[in-house]
Amino acid sequence: MGLFSKDIETMNDLFVHTLRDIYYAEQQIVKALPEMIEKASNPQLKNAFKNHLEETRGHVRRVEEVFRMHGVGAKGVDCPAIDGIIDETEEIAGEVEDKQVLDAALVAAAQAVEHYEITRYGTLIAWAKELGRSDCASVLQQNLEEEKAADKKLTDIAETRVNQMAA
Amino acid sequence: MGLFSKDIETMNDLFVHTLRDIYYAEQQIVKALPEMIEKASNPQLKNAFKNHLEETRGHVRRVEEVFRMHGVGAKGVDCPAIDGIIDETEEIAGEVEDKQVLDAALVAAAQAVEHYEITRYGTLIAWAKELGRSDCASVLQQNLEEEKAADKKLTDIAETRVNQMAA
Repeated sequence: MGLFSKDIETMNDLFVHTLRDIYYAEQQIVKALPEMIEKASNPQLKNAFKNHLEETRGHVRRVEEVFRMHGVGAKGVDCPAIDGIIDETEEIAGEVEDKQVLDAALVAAAQAVEHYEITRYGTLIAWAKELGRSDCASVLQQNLEEEKAADKKLTDIAETRVNQMAA
Repeated sequence: MGLFSKDIETMNDLFVHTLRDIYYAEQQIVKALPEMIEKASNPQLKNAFKNHLEETRGHVRRVEEVFRMHGVGAKGVDCPAIDGIIDETEEIAGEVEDKQVLDAALVAAAQAVEHYEITRYGTLIAWAKELGRSDCASVLQQNLEEEKAADKKLTDIAETRVNQMAA
């Protein structure tokens, strides 16, 4: 959640701070996905990453919309958690040579990213409602639904891959 | 997932590496929870953290059991993702003064931890089955179920808190 928490006094401050956290995270994911697309071998996985890159660009725009609706400037704060998850992904992508093992590692890394976003959007939606901002909550809900669907798709791809190897 | 990924050549290497990642993560959580217990004001939340500390000690032992079953030494690898999540938690815990805002931030931080563990255990269980180690998978499944239950309990506490404030 970044390094400015001493400025957090109210639930509204906490909401805005966490919105900045996910804004930074979504932008880092947009930067990370092209390498994941390039490294993936399984065509279904490559395609899922391509689709998710488009979706993620849409998530950035929706978060900017929430900033506007809430009357605060769109800016990010450093988020060591997402940086850590992405660093791990890039390192694995650079080192594992076997294509099937690399695909498995990429799926796992992408699912860690999805789960980070799922928990943050879940929290933001609850706090938006608490602050009487159901309008913001429903925009954030759209991102949450797409993250959950992306996570489920990755689970399906992982299971298909395993079943194919067993066949 | 730490910094030794160049040693990962097979699915078994990836499984062992990720087991080391979650082993390190569980140990860091055991170290972080006492401060979260101390900082929480809501009695339900304080109690949930206390119970989860006991559960987490059990998770460490179960992961050690899986290492033994799989015939590899129990050791951790640095995990920048969980370090980032815990750093954020500690910083928030040290800076936010309002007790209700602090409780909300602690719930959010704990749920980010739970989601990291949920995704890693999900992956490990799938890989254990792929490697023909259903015995390891069923031990890991017990940890996964407890992490999911802990996450749900935190959601319930957050909702109760919001409802009480609205009442």
